[in-house]
Amino acid sequence: MAYNELYQYSVVSSLMEGIGETGIPYSELVTHGNHGLGTFRRMAGEMICLDNEVYQMKSDGSIVTIDPSTGNDVAPFAMVTRFQPSFTTSIAFDSKQGLSDIMTTLFPKTKNRYLSFRLDGLFKELHQRQTTYEFTDVRGSLIGFRSPEFLQGVSVAGDHLHFISDERDRGGHVLDCKSAGEVQFSGSIMSTVHMQLPDDDEYNEADLELDDDGIRKVEG
Amino acid sequence: MAYNELYQYSVVSSLMEGIGETGIPYSELVTHGNHGLGTFRRMAGEMICLDNEVYQMKSDGSIVTIDPSTGNDVAPFAMVTRFQPSFTTSIAFDSKQGLSDIMTTLFPKTKNRYLSFRLDGLFKELHQRQTTYEFTDVRGSLIGFRSPEFLQGVSVAGDHLHFISDERDRGGHVLDCKSAGEVQFSGSIMSTVHMQLPDDDEYNEADLELDDDGIRKVEG
Repeated sequence: MAYNELYQYSVVSSLMEGIGETGIPYSELVTHGNHGLGTFRRMAGEMICLDNEVYQMKSDGSIVTIDPSTGNDVAPFAMVTRFQPSFTTSIAFDSKQGLSDIMTTLFPKTKNRYLSFRLDGLFKELHQRQTTYEFTDVRGSLIGFRSPEFLQGVSVAGDHLHFISDERDRGGHVLDCKSAGEVQFSGSIMSTVHMQLPDDDEYNEADLELDDDGIRKVEG
Repeated sequence: MAYNELYQYSVVSSLMEGIGETGIPYSELVTHGNHGLGTFRRMAGEMICLDNEVYQMKSDGSIVTIDPSTGNDVAPFAMVTRFQPSFTTSIAFDSKQGLSDIMTTLFPKTKNRYLSFRLDGLFKELHQRQTTYEFTDVRGSLIGFRSPEFLQGVSVAGDHLHFISDERDRGGHVLDCKSAGEVQFSGSIMSTVHMQLPDDDEYNEADLELDDDGIRKVEG
């Protein structure tokens, strides 16, 4: 795959149906990209892929580095790319919505295509799913994808963000975030999508319907 | 691209918005497949691709063979594959729904994936769009794709069929059809999708919303 092409395994509507017994082996997934998001068998934690490493961020707060070559780990859903930012800049924002607004300005006329992006620096606040606390003043990286509204159900419409700390001791799905001053932003447009649909009984027999509210609640 | 992978240019929701000034050059499209459906700039006719040939079936009934290497033709929307049927059989049917039911039996557990298929033989009746008449007792080929219901808007949910006669003098988008006795059916499952999103102002500025009723009316 060329740089900045999206590789997606399965569709979000399938994940929303709880389909997670099987998936793409991580050994195969990493051949398609070195930057991305996903999950694990039975949704056991959040996946973040950056700098050619894959991490499993479990609901108990622990973080495991995945070795794709030896493990049996699979992703029931994942989005990855070979990330090559078209530009890098410094930005500051007070909320996930503020970050979203900045990206809309940075990438005009892209609402019907995908964006991939990355933020590195010090974050004042990070609100995460599956934790009862929030992180404050933590240095780390946010990996994200923006997907077009009309592809809700295939992907997660809007911005989808995962965080991991520089010390690899904290991270997860980000509900809201605030930078501490400026952080480094890198991003790129993605117009080419490679989508692999699963082929197992659980997927093949599922009634996949668009659950817009559900996706926004769980993945927003 | 390997056999039986789907290559799709743009999404049906874009076509439904009337976005058709530009598209993928046919010279590029044919590198992705030798079997498929699509349209032309400003929706000037229906495209059918079979046996490595591309035909433009115009609304006035005329049919033109496209030479991708020399023409300036573009497809604002197209679906093609390198078709290699997983099996071939003989079937008879009284309607498009009858054909659909047979395919559901031939390909169990595929409702969440794509099918590509082809029918060759003598057709008793063919009801087509953009013609005020129907064809009767005509020998030719039907090329079709079945797309999952949950991908309505990306593709055309359900069965989408184009016909061309053996003599290459009649054809178009098929609304209903009936075989004259048995015809040859060839088909295959497709689980891998390559989707190229356009990058032009018309597409980038469009408000793409799912128009399920509209798609069923126009493309059904």
